Amino acid sequence: MSGGANPGATGRRQTKDGRPSIRDVAEAAGVSVTTVSHVLNDWEGARVNEETRRRVRTVASQLGYAPNRLARGLRMQRSNLLAMISDHIAITPHAGRVILGAQETASVRGWTLMLFTTAGDPATEERDVRALRAHQVDGVLYASMFHRVVRVPPGLEGVPVVLVDARTEDGGPDAVVPDEVRGGRDATEELIRQGHRRIGLPWNRDDIPATHGRLAGHRDALAAAGLPFDPALVVAEESESGGGYLASRRLLALPDRPTALFCFNDRMAMGAYHAAAEVGLRIPDDLSVIGFDNQAYVADGLYPGLTTMALPHYEMGVWAVERILDLIERPGDGDGPVTPQLLPCPLIRRASVGPPPDGRSAAT
Amino acid sequence: MSGGANPGATGRRQTKDGRPSIRDVAEAAGVSVTTVSHVLNDWEGARVNEETRRRVRTVASQLGYAPNRLARGLRMQRSNLLAMISDHIAITPHAGRVILGAQETASVRGWTLMLFTTAGDPATEERDVRALRAHQVDGVLYASMFHRVVRVPPGLEGVPVVLVDARTEDGGPDAVVPDEVRGGRDATEELIRQGHRRIGLPWNRDDIPATHGRLAGHRDALAAAGLPFDPALVVAEESESGGGYLASRRLLALPDRPTALFCFNDRMAMGAYHAAAEVGLRIPDDLSVIGFDNQAYVADGLYPGLTTMALPHYEMGVWAVERILDLIERPGDGDGPVTPQLLPCPLIRRASVGPPPDGRSAAT
Repeated sequence: MSGGANPGATGRRQTKDGRPSIRDVAEAAGVSVTTVSHVLNDWEGARVNEETRRRVRTVASQLGYAPNRLARGLRMQRSNLLAMISDHIAITPHAGRVILGAQETASVRGWTLMLFTTAGDPATEERDVRALRAHQVDGVLYASMFHRVVRVPPGLEGVPVVLVDARTEDGGPDAVVPDEVRGGRDATEELIRQGHRRIGLPWNRDDIPATHGRLAGHRDALAAAGLPFDPALVVAEESESGGGYLASRRLLALPDRPTALFCFNDRMAMGAYHAAAEVGLRIPDDLSVIGFDNQAYVADGLYPGLTTMALPHYEMGVWAVERILDLIERPGDGDGPVTPQLLPCPLIRRASVGPPPDGRSAAT
Repeated sequence: MSGGANPGATGRRQTKDGRPSIRDVAEAAGVSVTTVSHVLNDWEGARVNEETRRRVRTVASQLGYAPNRLARGLRMQRSNLLAMISDHIAITPHAGRVILGAQETASVRGWTLMLFTTAGDPATEERDVRALRAHQVDGVLYASMFHRVVRVPPGLEGVPVVLVDARTEDGGPDAVVPDEVRGGRDATEELIRQGHRRIGLPWNRDDIPATHGRLAGHRDALAAAGLPFDPALVVAEESESGGGYLASRRLLALPDRPTALFCFNDRMAMGAYHAAAEVGLRIPDDLSVIGFDNQAYVADGLYPGLTTMALPHYEMGVWAVERILDLIERPGDGDGPVTPQLLPCPLIRRASVGPPPDGRSAAT
């Protein structure tokens, strides 16, 4: 048993990238590979005396062996830490599912997620970037809590970044967002399948990708079915329950009243339910309603349950972590940019969509 | 200068709780208190030679100084990392606000929050505990996403722990939870102030602290006002919109119909709105409704807006981080257990509460 570490000892093998292997540490410390693993992973069950533990650690340090996060303090390269920087985690209802998807995927692959919330404040963002660099984070997920165009904070040069529910103006890092256009098309097709020909749109007035994408998909579906697009059927209001109520009241007062409403989101649909009740229309017998977001406690809390398109929050979190670990673990092995990656918004059928009141005539 | 540690050395002082002080370590190691601090905090700027560093650490270990840090082995610099272990982050709607409160407070004080989500799975929890120990986390927030009784996962010995929205059966670590009893009392008092004498309770049937605490507060308020408690006015169902609907229909069918409903939570109130509309009762003219939780997009999305009690999620996150940083930074300086710390649930007045239909006669 050699008493100390000797980086130049004969018999030392290196991994193909020139870094020492666990076997090098075991040989230099005069112990088994298992013992090295137990010591460096701090397994409580392992019966290794303190003197041996100390020797293994010293040898590992001197050789620069750094198998995992434990050895981070011993000047290593990989921290097995990911950071998620998020702008408005608490403001939107499904934020937790993005984090959950990311965290569970990271955990399965042996990585840990640190969380930073900037609330969009540049000073906070700068401090967060300093902190994550100090912790030697290997990759950064930059997550917006609704689909929007962002700029990546400065100071992240050299760190892999993936955007979640966000994209940049100029391409920039890999990004994953919901497929708003396809979601808008699928929602509209669901209504057309039931026989609806005049579809009102209580719509968002914010200039965000969802506003434009969902409407573009709606128009695609109309065109594919040979139906005209009537701008009078789009009424933009605040994208909350109150705005949905106002927009729906206007739409339901039209002389040629729509038989279905495709609401920008589930909160606007909540207002549409209220408007329908006020003018004496039953859902779905007299009026079909479809939403977007599949927002917990709203879509499933309404009566009748709201048919809607689900936002893939969990799936975006999963995708982003898979992607960033690929970038970290196989940096030269990119399969080309797929920016932004579009994830589908599945149709969730509940009970708010049926045929129009005079279904047979409308369907002809 | 004495060469080694001697726990029995003369001149050793102890802190009031019997634990050795930093001065004990300094004396036993023959160095200044400043040097001990520099070594144990691994200050990079400090010029202390390796032999002295080793001696200080050995002495500190033998004396059992700062067991929370030394328990993590002899690499005890402070990481400035906190871990939040959470059971069901994505399942409840306000999870994000707990995280936000914790994260913002940590950030202001120069700490970083790591996030682990166990989904209640013991194997995941065990892996997470290993990971956070490997990252030398200085403190752990164990957060439940609704107020409940938990057990602290094993493997956290020696690490300060604070429970958020959770408490243990047996006291255990410091904890912060909503003051359910006071919230139930305040909600009931708001209705009594308006003149209500018969209050129906669409209630949760789960055996959780909120179920019992809010009801206890309700009974306190009735007793204080000299009103009888009628068990027939409590109808337990699933604590969702559908359960609120069923319970409310039963309550509104009673011969001596209640003039107000205190709903266990806002989702049950959502169902109460639906029930009221079905039997032709206007809110608040014919029926007052008060909820609990101030759940975003539900309480403010209903029409009329729902008066409710807000859960202090953000505030619990803030409190927990303040507390754990106190435990970490001033370990011997505890001001006694305050377990669990109760935070108030403020009344949020919207438009669903008014006087009973025949207000004057009822109020006499």
